[in-house]
Amino acid sequence: MSAMESVKALVFDVFGTVVDWREGIARDAAPFLARHGRGDIDPRGFADAWRRRYQPAMEECRSGRRPFTRLDLLHRENLEAVLRDHGLDPARIGESELDALNRAWHRLDPWPEAVAGLVRLRRRYFIAPLSNGNIALLANMAKRAGLPWDAILGAEVAQAYKPQPEAYLRTAEILGLRPAEVCLVAAHNNDLKAARGSGLATAFVPRPTEHGPGQATDLEPAEPWDVVARDFQDLAHRLGC
Amino acid sequence: MSAMESVKALVFDVFGTVVDWREGIARDAAPFLARHGRGDIDPRGFADAWRRRYQPAMEECRSGRRPFTRLDLLHRENLEAVLRDHGLDPARIGESELDALNRAWHRLDPWPEAVAGLVRLRRRYFIAPLSNGNIALLANMAKRAGLPWDAILGAEVAQAYKPQPEAYLRTAEILGLRPAEVCLVAAHNNDLKAARGSGLATAFVPRPTEHGPGQATDLEPAEPWDVVARDFQDLAHRLGC
Repeated sequence: MSAMESVKALVFDVFGTVVDWREGIARDAAPFLARHGRGDIDPRGFADAWRRRYQPAMEECRSGRRPFTRLDLLHRENLEAVLRDHGLDPARIGESELDALNRAWHRLDPWPEAVAGLVRLRRRYFIAPLSNGNIALLANMAKRAGLPWDAILGAEVAQAYKPQPEAYLRTAEILGLRPAEVCLVAAHNNDLKAARGSGLATAFVPRPTEHGPGQATDLEPAEPWDVVARDFQDLAHRLGC
Repeated sequence: MSAMESVKALVFDVFGTVVDWREGIARDAAPFLARHGRGDIDPRGFADAWRRRYQPAMEECRSGRRPFTRLDLLHRENLEAVLRDHGLDPARIGESELDALNRAWHRLDPWPEAVAGLVRLRRRYFIAPLSNGNIALLANMAKRAGLPWDAILGAEVAQAYKPQPEAYLRTAEILGLRPAEVCLVAAHNNDLKAARGSGLATAFVPRPTEHGPGQATDLEPAEPWDVVARDFQDLAHRLGC
């Protein structure tokens, strides 16, 4: 674990790593769908469909075909597309109701041990999200859930979406640290691979039910990451917090 | 106080309004000057001289003569200039010592009631700094002093130095709020004037010893600001927190 000796800041992937987006979105989608006479749609399937549009939407920005656009707006565009895919016309749903459902991403609950683990980790490290979520989304989520971040960082601050190298490198630079002084904590091997490619230290925490009970991806570390922990409490223990 | 009814977020000037920069810089400059055989220099005068270079340095960026440059670097350049003005050659002082003194701006103490006032205000409002300080400076300061911000905002996030309108307008936009839903809290009338010019609500909290016992500026509100409070505890009381 010698790569961790120089680490001063832990930065965290959020969707899936810190919070359970699938259950949170399903919880808020269920009454929305029922109100619009579509109680037949599985809200978890609706959450999955909304999330499937996440990477393609960011790819438009990463490729340069579209200027950097904050995630709240991408989520909103994706919501309207998913509603249409399910036979619902967003133009017939009130603006305030669409906006309220879109903000379900601001109201996601952390995994059960996440807050307690972060409180311990924060005693020794500077901690911040390094998420593709925008600042307001991450800050509203933190305020509601009690996530004790030292700052709100991520794609909007870096003006680049992960896994672009700029997302990791600018975050370290903003913190006034060398990449090796920053460790990404994530449940996703591809995120860690990109972080390592930019010189960051890496910590893997699996979240085996992020995609539901049948999840087949990211159950195991794909490379020998600098730390592998069961959850955030175990991560705190392994880092001596 | 009707302008406050629509306010959802309070954003704070920091240097002078939340923290006492003059005493904090003097505290860390004193042993530095003594180590270099210049115990004859008044550390508060040294702090004042360092601070006098603050506005001109930012003005280079505001005017477009220089791209946006974070405050840590402007502070560092200004420190070297002030040392030279006092007959000290920065090239003969170690890099780590210069960096440590420059980081005195990360270690400023809050005014005595500021943390308790912010804790109360945070129950009802989203709170964040809207400072010309950079993210790392503000976040390190907050971690050390226990400032309970919901996010770290300011010039570096907005990529514009106050009192440029973009500093206020982009901050509201990042929060997903209209300018009238954001209130600037500041001890400086010119900051509040610019915020009002961009449509923000305004709260004045005088800090009559920011510049020392002989302070002649910003002792009174220069305009009828939306709220005038004695300190942050009084502000919390007036806002029903």
